[in-house]
Parts: sequence; C-alpha cells; structure tokens
Amino acid sequence: MFQDFKLVGDRPVAIQVKEYIKRLIIKGTFHKDQKLPSTREMSSVLKVSRNTVIAAYEGLEDDGFTYTIPSRGSYVAAMVDRLVADNGGDDASFAWQIDWKTRMSKYAVSAAELDMMKQGIRAPRGIISFTSIAPDEQLFDLGDVRRAFMDRMAIEGQVLLNYGYAKGYKPLIDYLMRYMENKGVDISGKDLLITSGFTEGFDIVLSALRPSARRGTVICENPTHHTAIKNLKLQGFEITGIPMERDGINVEQFEAVLQKQTNSFDLAYLTPSYHNPTGIVMSPAKRSAVMNLMMRYQIPVIEDGFNEELRYSGAHIAPLIATAGRGNGVIYIGSFSKVLFPGLRVGWVLGDRALIDTLESIKRARTIHTSTIDQSILYQYLLNGNFEKYVKRARMEYKRKYELTKACCDTHLSEAQLSGDGGLHVFLTFPAGVNTRQLLEACIDQGVIYTPGDKFFIHEGEGTNTLRLGFSRVTDEQIERGIQIIGQQVRNFHKACGHKNNP
Amino acid sequence: MFQDFKLVGDRPVAIQVKEYIKRLIIKGTFHKDQKLPSTREMSSVLKVSRNTVIAAYEGLEDDGFTYTIPSRGSYVAAMVDRLVADNGGDDASFAWQIDWKTRMSKYAVSAAELDMMKQGIRAPRGIISFTSIAPDEQLFDLGDVRRAFMDRMAIEGQVLLNYGYAKGYKPLIDYLMRYMENKGVDISGKDLLITSGFTEGFDIVLSALRPSARRGTVICENPTHHTAIKNLKLQGFEITGIPMERDGINVEQFEAVLQKQTNSFDLAYLTPSYHNPTGIVMSPAKRSAVMNLMMRYQIPVIEDGFNEELRYSGAHIAPLIATAGRGNGVIYIGSFSKVLFPGLRVGWVLGDRALIDTLESIKRARTIHTSTIDQSILYQYLLNGNFEKYVKRARMEYKRKYELTKACCDTHLSEAQLSGDGGLHVFLTFPAGVNTRQLLEACIDQGVIYTPGDKFFIHEGEGTNTLRLGFSRVTDEQIERGIQIIGQQVRNFHKACGHKNNP
Repeated sequence: MFQDFKLVGDRPVAIQVKEYIKRLIIKGTFHKDQKLPSTREMSSVLKVSRNTVIAAYEGLEDDGFTYTIPSRGSYVAAMVDRLVADNGGDDASFAWQIDWKTRMSKYAVSAAELDMMKQGIRAPRGIISFTSIAPDEQLFDLGDVRRAFMDRMAIEGQVLLNYGYAKGYKPLIDYLMRYMENKGVDISGKDLLITSGFTEGFDIVLSALRPSARRGTVICENPTHHTAIKNLKLQGFEITGIPMERDGINVEQFEAVLQKQTNSFDLAYLTPSYHNPTGIVMSPAKRSAVMNLMMRYQIPVIEDGFNEELRYSGAHIAPLIATAGRGNGVIYIGSFSKVLFPGLRVGWVLGDRALIDTLESIKRARTIHTSTIDQSILYQYLLNGNFEKYVKRARMEYKRKYELTKACCDTHLSEAQLSGDGGLHVFLTFPAGVNTRQLLEACIDQGVIYTPGDKFFIHEGEGTNTLRLGFSRVTDEQIERGIQIIGQQVRNFHKACGHKNNP
Repeated sequence: MFQDFKLVGDRPVAIQVKEYIKRLIIKGTFHKDQKLPSTREMSSVLKVSRNTVIAAYEGLEDDGFTYTIPSRGSYVAAMVDRLVADNGGDDASFAWQIDWKTRMSKYAVSAAELDMMKQGIRAPRGIISFTSIAPDEQLFDLGDVRRAFMDRMAIEGQVLLNYGYAKGYKPLIDYLMRYMENKGVDISGKDLLITSGFTEGFDIVLSALRPSARRGTVICENPTHHTAIKNLKLQGFEITGIPMERDGINVEQFEAVLQKQTNSFDLAYLTPSYHNPTGIVMSPAKRSAVMNLMMRYQIPVIEDGFNEELRYSGAHIAPLIATAGRGNGVIYIGSFSKVLFPGLRVGWVLGDRALIDTLESIKRARTIHTSTIDQSILYQYLLNGNFEKYVKRARMEYKRKYELTKACCDTHLSEAQLSGDGGLHVFLTFPAGVNTRQLLEACIDQGVIYTPGDKFFIHEGEGTNTLRLGFSRVTDEQIERGIQIIGQQVRNFHKACGHKNNP
C-alpha cells in the first residue's frame, strides 16, 4: 500500500496527500469505520512532513470523508454506495445504459451534423495553414491586458467576482453606446445587450424572431458566414441567398426576389463591411438601395459588424444601422473578437429598446450574464486607450500581409478572381472547372491547406470553384511558398483534366 | 464652435479630441470635403497641446473620417447618408418602425414573462434583504485571484486571449474530471463539457433531450430551483413535481406516479444535496431507492450539484452519478458559482461520452466556447490550493450565520417548520393560513424583504405559506433584527386574521 503515491508539479503537498487518501477510500482500500494510519506513520510512509499529513487529515474531515475519535485517531466515514439492482446483482451499474442516440432532439442531431469544426481538416505539424482567420496572437499586447485587469480589480475589487447583470457590465454598455454613436448611429430609442460573442447575440436574436407556427424565412448574401448559415438552419429558417458582386449584394436580384415573394421575409441577414468570406465592402449607393428595399418591404435587418475595424484604405463607411437614423428596423451585432481577443467572449447587440428588453430575458435564461471579468478587462483596456494603439499596429501588419497575399495571388493564381478589401483573408473564385476540394487534396500532399469556399454557400454544389485564404496567422515566407504551391497544383489539376496552360 | 469640448476622467486626451471631432463630423457641423482647422488653431481653441491634436488628426484619418492633402491639411471624408425615402421625404427614417412585439416568438414571449428578475422586489437602500443566496463578496480572497491570473498569464501568455475549444480549457477539464473522481465517480466512458455556468449547461442538456414531435415530460422535486422551472417551461417540458420530506423526495409518491404513468418520463431533474430552496440533503437510503427507480423505468437523471461544497456537518455523501457507477444514466451539472465566484461564469456537465460529444456541438453553436480567462483563472486558483483555503474559511463563516439564523427562527418564528442542512439559506413552512406574499408587504413596510416560496413550486397556488431566507449577504445584527421583525409581522398577521397567539 502507498507505493503508488507520487508528488506532482506545484500543487500544495497537503492537498495531494488528501486527494490520494480520498481515492483510497473511494476505491475501498480503506473501509468504513477503519482507522487511518497515525499521522506519524503516514508521514514516514509517504515521505512528507507530519504537519502536511495533519493538514491532509483535517481536510479529509472537513470534506466529510473521515471522522475523529478524540485521542484515538481518524476513522473512515464514507464510501460510495454503488447502485445495486433489486435482485441484488452487483453488476447492476453496468445494466443501466441509456441509448442516448435515440433520445437526441432534432436540434441536437442537426447541431452535431452541422458542426464543421468536427469535420474540419486537422493540420499536421509543419503544414502551411490558410484556414484560420483568427487574429495573430503575436500582436497581442499582453502587458496592456494585464494592466487593464489589475486597474479594474483595484477600482472595483470583489464586486467583479459576484453576480453581474444580464444586460451587461454598465460601464462597458455606456462605452459601447458612445462607440456606436461615433460611428454615426442615432441611439435614441435604442439599447444595448452584451453577449458572449457574436454567436450568442445572433442565436438569441434568431430565437426571439423565429415564427412559432411555421418555418422562418431569411434573405442574405450568398456566400455568407458559415456559422450564420448553421445557426439559421438550427433555428429552422429557410434561407434565400442573393449573389455577390464586386461592390456588394446584387441589388437587382434582391429586388426581383422580393417582388416575386408573396409573403415577405421574416429577416434579412447582411454583412455590409468586409463580408465573410468575400471580404467585399458594400458601396454607399448599394447601402441606400438595400435599406430602401428593407423599409419598403418591412424586413428587419440583422447587421453583422464583422471586422469593421480592419479597413485598410478608403473612407469610413457608416454601418446600416447609422443609415437607418431613428428607424428601428436594424439590429446591429458587433464584436471585437476578430480584431482584438477572441478569447474574451464579448459581443453586443444594438437595437430597438423594447426588443433589447426581451433579448435580455432570453440572455438571462441562457447564461445569466456574460463573464464580468471579460467585460471589465475589455472596458478598462478600451478606456486606457490601448485599443487605438493596438488597432493601429494590427492594421499596419495585416495590411502588409494582405498586400503580400494579393501580390502572390496575382503572380501564381492569376486565373482566379480575387476579392477582399480588408480583414484577415481574401477569397478566390476560379474558372468553373476547378474543384477546390479536389485541389485541396493535392495541396495537402504538398503541405498546404486552405478553406474550400463551398461551405459558405447556402446550397450544396455552389461555390465548388472558390476558396478562402486566411493570412493572419501565416508568416510572410509561408504566404509566398504556400500560394506558389497552390498555383502549381492548379496547373497540375488543369493538366490532369486535359486542359493545358500552354497550347 | 468647440465650446462644448470638455476633457473627462483619465482617457488619453488625443482619443478624446478625436472622438469629439468625429461627433462634429457625424452631426454635420463639418461638411464633406471641408477643411478642418489647422492643428495649431485647433490646439489653441481646445486648449490641448499641438502634438495631441496631431495624434487626434492621424487617428481620424486612420478611421477613415478625414483625408489629407499634402501641405494643405485635413479634409472631412465621410458622413452618414441617412435613409431617404424613394419620394425624397427627409423624415423617412422615422417612417421605418418595426412593431417588434408582433414579431416575437413564443419562446421570447415566455422568456420575458417567466423572467422573475424583472418582476423582483427592488430593495430600497437600508432595507434588510434576505433575498440573495449569492456568496458574500467580503470573503473573496482577491489577492489569490489576482495571483492566479498573473500566474496563468505568465505560463500561457497570448494563447489565453485567442480562440479556445468548445469543450473547454483542457487543464480545467482534466482537473474537474479528477475532482469528480475524488467524489467517487467512475469516470470511465464519461466526459466533461465546460459551460458558462450551471444555467447554460442545463439549457443545453434540455435542448438536446427535448422530444421533437411532442412536449417533453420531466419529473422533479417540488418545490425546486426556480431557474430550472423556468428553463424547463421555456423548452416546452410538462413538469410533474413530487413533494419533499425531511430527508428528501417522497419516494413512495415518486414510485406511485411512475407506476400510474403509461409513458415513462423523458427526464428526472434532482438536487440531492442542499436542495434549492429547502436546503435538504437526500438520505443515502433514499438515494439508492431513487436510483433503482430511475434504472427500472429507464429515466435519465439530470443531477444538480448545487452547493455540494457547503456541507456544515455529517459525512460526505457521494453524488447520484457516483452511485450509478459505470451506468451512463446520470448527467451531473456542477458549478463553483454559489460557493466561489458567480462572476466567473464557469460550470460543467459530466456524463456519457457520446452525449457530451453532441452537447459540445450545441455549445459551439451557441457561444463558441466559455471565456478562457475565466476558465484559466479558476484552474490556476484551484491548482494553487486556494479553493481549499477559501472553502474552509467560507464554511466556517456561513456555518456560523446558518446557526444564528436557525436560532433566531427558533426564537421568533417557532411556528414555522425550518429546513436546510447547509448552503446559504434556510426554508420556512408556516401553518397553512399564513400567506407569505401578504406577509411580505407588511415586512417591506418594516424594512425587511425575503423571497416568497411559491415561486419555487411547480403549480400556482402551492407553497403560499413558505419563504426562503438567504443569510449569506446579511450581517449578524441584520439577521437578528430582520427575523425579529418578520416574527412581529407574523403575529400581527394572525391578529388581523382573528387568530390570537394568546387565547
């Protein structure tokens, strides 16, 4: 006995001893009412100080695993009574097996089926991966984040660790309202809900606005953000996609679809700036046209404020919710995750005050409130002016990579049409014959992966000739080499298909 | 112009200047292509240094609000194009008003209706409030939390700020698996999902297990946790409640209901330890009996690990999931929120591996993942051995308050039956005639509030003679005075009803 006790790492030794003895009790090595070895004996067997054993024994009693008989010692109090079947069979616990698969809801089954992360390509070490559009953590200013945490803790203290409000951390709400006002939003009659990132905000809005008696209908850009497609499907929405042009959604087709439809759409979902995956910024003229359509047909808009901060050139373009003035038809969902820290799960929903009030109740029912630590770190970081400094540096670095990526694509992938006016990725559309999933297999063999574009399209079979290249977490050298390799594979692909580049 | 510029607080001045000018541009004070005052002029008007203005002007250009003509100055680039109706009416933005109320889903309407926080009693300052069962933040060891954050940041650095995994922060998952093993759980075939607190875990489990074609059915203790009742209703479950006895649920009635039911229940929801609101710990004998029933009727159990750490006396009692051995029928949902820091939104779901795999997909669809900062602080705090130290102190303090509360109830509220073997509250059941909502009105006038017990009961009209007293955030003096006042009001209540204590 006691030979398997090993001290590990830097945990307090008394706790390690306590947990070790707990496991012996649970395993049945010590029986109920059995006396534990004296602290002196235990100390010599385990080769730890006697004080450590005394502390461990105290802990065991605190946790109810032992009881003390004064001047006699510690006795084992508890064991787990394993389930015994009525007939007394002692393997009864094996007998109770629920077949969970048969009990899963439709929602759960779809959530698993639509979970692309689980079907994602695992990148072997050393491979050049263009699949991520998460920010480059090397740019994070850890010192400023640390300071923000310490500053806020010093100001607010313990309060930060107790319950907060479902609507969010008040100073951050006020800050973000002002922040949105500075983007030109008329905030009268509007309110703001803090969520655990964009995804929670989007999902809450959808569950608030899905019709109860029938499937919901939504109209959006095609292709679009695949998480949005997933959540729309999960919430039972039927999705109508409108193709993209170089300056945003095809407005003529948009209008044509609206005219044909007898019942209007329940929702529009739009990403007017640095659209995912195409990276396109919708032109001011199209914004006006789209908003007029939405108003005419009374279709509420969910605006995805994706990457709005990562503009590399051109003038500031106000979000749709600013264009709508005092109109209450736009729900704006924002997040700093893509440009700042995705690990801090903080997003926000800005919209009509009465709507936000209901969304707050849904938020409360789902997660009580968003992490106060996350919210307060973010708030203090913004307040300290760190965000401006960081974004300036990040923009400069990402812009450089963006231009390098573009240049490499011009050289090696000239037959593909490139789109993307900012953000952390570009989107490539090849001539119709190039299947980017087949191409990917060849590229993987050469040590390069990217995201096939079809997953961003509403219907199966669309966008099979497209791909997304995320450049934020790839080195310059990898960008050059990776795109060169993709280019070679495209040429091989053509050869294999009987098309030759040099006739 | 510029007279309304005022420096506030401790934000960097250049940012304040930048945002001030942004607002002027947005309001239309500066027009498109208008030249901004020179940095020299601006500096003298705003009474800030010229370097500050230069930095602010640079920021405006970075954000796309201005453009520079070399050797001439900064010009305004952008304004918000407010929505203009097709007929050119300039108040068009007012015209676009969506009537959100008519568009709300049933789910949203129920979420708002069942949102008790919004209907809660606002406590005026100075009132003695027994409504909270949140931990006392005075007990929080802020220094240890700070150290946990700094330690973890030093070890992991930037990684903590980038995307994490939907399943949770790996070191914390491993820690909690071990933690549950130390409670006697056989973890073979099981897995663990980290959630944003108990509530998210519970809601995810319900949405995975609600039947798709009909309303779900659930059986649980009555009364029970009101958030659980809310979420069960929101997810469309029909709830059958089984009354409580001093040592837990009434097993005979439980069995009788199961026998009568032609279709078995989809789920059981049970809180065997420090049940909310009654504070009762289910006896080992009843645990076995209940688990045998669940096995016989093949009813999956959601076990609420509520406050399991706040045991003040008696032996450790293993959770139901430990009793089930290798059986996979129990889903355990745990959280440190009630005993540790509710502001850190971290809970966990422990259960069958295949089930957890599906729950992970739902979690990803809802919030991507739980805050990595929260998870890593909690992990390091546990690893450092701070939790044991804290719980020891917290138990001692809460136990003292618990005993004080009990003694005061014995003195002033002797006609009420008190229950509660641990945790942060006691539960009182008065003789049938005492309506605790009417009593509450009288108490509010005297400066005392508590939580009427009826909100914990499944059906309207039940538990009208019960109340919950949370003592964690009330001083000793307030406990004594508050309970005394409630006692007086009970006596007045009897007098008013014509019952006299002294015949």
